[in-house]
Amino acid sequence: MELAFAERYELYRQEIEQYLNSLFEEEPHWADLYASMRYSVLAGGKRIRPVLTLEFARLAGMDWHDAVPVACALELVHTYSLIHDDLPCMDDDDLRRGKPTNHKVYGETLAVLAGDALQAEAYRLILTAPGLKAEQRAECALILAGASGADGMVAGQVLDTLHAPKTEQELTEVHRLKTGAMIAGACRLGVAAADAKEAFHQAAAEYGYQLGMAFQIRDDMLDVIGNADEFGKPIGSDREEGKVTFPDLLGLEGCERAVLDCTERAKSAVAPWDEDGFLAELADSLTNRMK
Amino acid sequence: MELAFAERYELYRQEIEQYLNSLFEEEPHWADLYASMRYSVLAGGKRIRPVLTLEFARLAGMDWHDAVPVACALELVHTYSLIHDDLPCMDDDDLRRGKPTNHKVYGETLAVLAGDALQAEAYRLILTAPGLKAEQRAECALILAGASGADGMVAGQVLDTLHAPKTEQELTEVHRLKTGAMIAGACRLGVAAADAKEAFHQAAAEYGYQLGMAFQIRDDMLDVIGNADEFGKPIGSDREEGKVTFPDLLGLEGCERAVLDCTERAKSAVAPWDEDGFLAELADSLTNRMK
Repeated sequence: MELAFAERYELYRQEIEQYLNSLFEEEPHWADLYASMRYSVLAGGKRIRPVLTLEFARLAGMDWHDAVPVACALELVHTYSLIHDDLPCMDDDDLRRGKPTNHKVYGETLAVLAGDALQAEAYRLILTAPGLKAEQRAECALILAGASGADGMVAGQVLDTLHAPKTEQELTEVHRLKTGAMIAGACRLGVAAADAKEAFHQAAAEYGYQLGMAFQIRDDMLDVIGNADEFGKPIGSDREEGKVTFPDLLGLEGCERAVLDCTERAKSAVAPWDEDGFLAELADSLTNRMK
Repeated sequence: MELAFAERYELYRQEIEQYLNSLFEEEPHWADLYASMRYSVLAGGKRIRPVLTLEFARLAGMDWHDAVPVACALELVHTYSLIHDDLPCMDDDDLRRGKPTNHKVYGETLAVLAGDALQAEAYRLILTAPGLKAEQRAECALILAGASGADGMVAGQVLDTLHAPKTEQELTEVHRLKTGAMIAGACRLGVAAADAKEAFHQAAAEYGYQLGMAFQIRDDMLDVIGNADEFGKPIGSDREEGKVTFPDLLGLEGCERAVLDCTERAKSAVAPWDEDGFLAELADSLTNRMK
């Protein structure tokens, strides 16, 4: 029962990988669509979002195994967003996590369609989740739609790609929507799947938002630190033209403080529920990560 | 109560337009996203799909006004599919219904993202529909996901765009998935919103599939007839290279027969429920349409 942080994380991660690996396996006439979907779904990553769903489900008192389809549904939406973000008309990236991006392997047409299909399939997973009642399914699906839609993740993507945020306030809004909404959504999904009390909903949302913000600022910092270490470039010189980041606005020390502040706020939001300290350790591990 | 076909259709259509026009109206920081979504949602069309949802909801015994959000949700998904279909990496169309396509007005980046957001917002509409219980919301959302996802509309799009169907069987499968699944989904949504009996579900699905097939074959025919009338070209000469259509395979007379067969099958499937003959008239009007 009492697992150490790393053991529990690995337990969750393995269940998630196994479940994701069971999706889109059969071979219909449109096997290329399934292959393209699987390619990106199984491209690895830390699976932080679904891990959060499972831990919140457990803390909210349900058998976390029953929340696996819901957790993986949000991961499918996260995956579709990565596929579309990498498209030539978006960020135009050839590589993701060291592997060719979806459209580089399967072509743009299939990359667009694989992303579209993954979004629909995410709802299908939630709405057929065996361990959940109709009320929980409906609530989870609504949380996912809110986190990922026109006032959530997609809005953040629009601001980031097309509005060139310049102030700390604008940059915070981008990351609140683009990263925060989905990480908060992952936390809330676990609570909703377990049908827990409203107070825990709010704590889960706050933890997720703060964690998302810490994650994003740390990401920006690592970008700068990585560059400075590897190539000896002056800090900030490698920034994309016109794209302002937190280190540009706050400096590295200011970023360090901001990350610690967000992490503390995240931890204290869930302190009454975080029995084994898993959520606190997860927050700390993101704060201290070097890649 | 006893409205003529045209009056009832117009009544539904106006409610649908009014509801759609109320969406994405406020102006958040990402007003460009909302504008792009509204542009395509309000670009007109016959609104056949949501009209079907409302009529099936009425026939299944509910106040059809309560089904408007569900009906419009499917129309949002239909709209997102048109936006993405028109993209340069898909069909690369500059015009739709005589107006510039979404990416021609708003750019490709916003067109991809508006489509993505419309899909999420469709689920939000269903899952917050005021007149529905959680069970009905969950069932409707699942029907939408099944109709539009990796074994429905998107699969049809993949086959149509990337697999170049050549036989009647292959072409039938494309249209069953690409058009039939969504029209059948629209019919089933009305029945599910009203929580009606299983027998009516099956009849609604059959009506929708047959209607979708008739609609599509008629579309292919009009393409040929239109060309022959307007430009005096020999039939079939204007087909896109490598794209086989029903007139190529069956000839115009064979198509005529096939459309009538599908229409009859559609009408007889719902005959026990189609009290005022609205569904029969709708099927006939599609069969006989000249544009």
